[in-house]
Amino acid sequence: MTNRRYLCGLDAAVDVVGGKWKPLLLWALDDAPRRFGELRREIDGISEKVLIQQLRELERDGIVNRTVHEQIPPKVVYSLTPRGVALNAALEPLGDWGEANMEHIVATRAT
Amino acid sequence: MTNRRYLCGLDAAVDVVGGKWKPLLLWALDDAPRRFGELRREIDGISEKVLIQQLRELERDGIVNRTVHEQIPPKVVYSLTPRGVALNAALEPLGDWGEANMEHIVATRAT
Repeated sequence: MTNRRYLCGLDAAVDVVGGKWKPLLLWALDDAPRRFGELRREIDGISEKVLIQQLRELERDGIVNRTVHEQIPPKVVYSLTPRGVALNAALEPLGDWGEANMEHIVATRAT
Repeated sequence: MTNRRYLCGLDAAVDVVGGKWKPLLLWALDDAPRRFGELRREIDGISEKVLIQQLRELERDGIVNRTVHEQIPPKVVYSLTPRGVALNAALEPLGDWGEANMEHIVATRAT
């Protein structure tokens, strides 16, 4: 996650979705908008601090919307922007490739 | 580039293609097999040391083939494996998304 010139579109895209949790976050938000606590429960193992940071980065990059409903206590909801919806669609073939090749990658790296 | 359990297919795929030069390397090899010197010239700004390292990682992950032709001096040619060809095809929509959204990402990060 840097602030730099990109070498090509793919370079920019990988920079936006790179990082351990972002693919999972995008998947979770693909189904429906989520509250912070829901995301925290759904993404097993993520800390509160890291979740906040990843959501902020996705918000800054225009992938995620953060909507505050003024009530007591305030309700904060995260959802995909149209840009985020398009990103998720573009990630699908790559996810399928990863699914099909994950075992091979893990195995060759272990040897 | 780690040796760990993956959370999902996309997580694995991003781990394989992450890193500043790998998308460019994959694009370069998509056209045709390349010799080391050709890749070095084609990928503006990459150092010899980094290019060697990135090619080794892609070779280990089963994305790139390294073929040595026994002649004097030996000719070393890099090409995509079938797994690498499939990866490149899967990356295309993501590259298009990045191309379309790169300006926005750079602009929002600069503010």
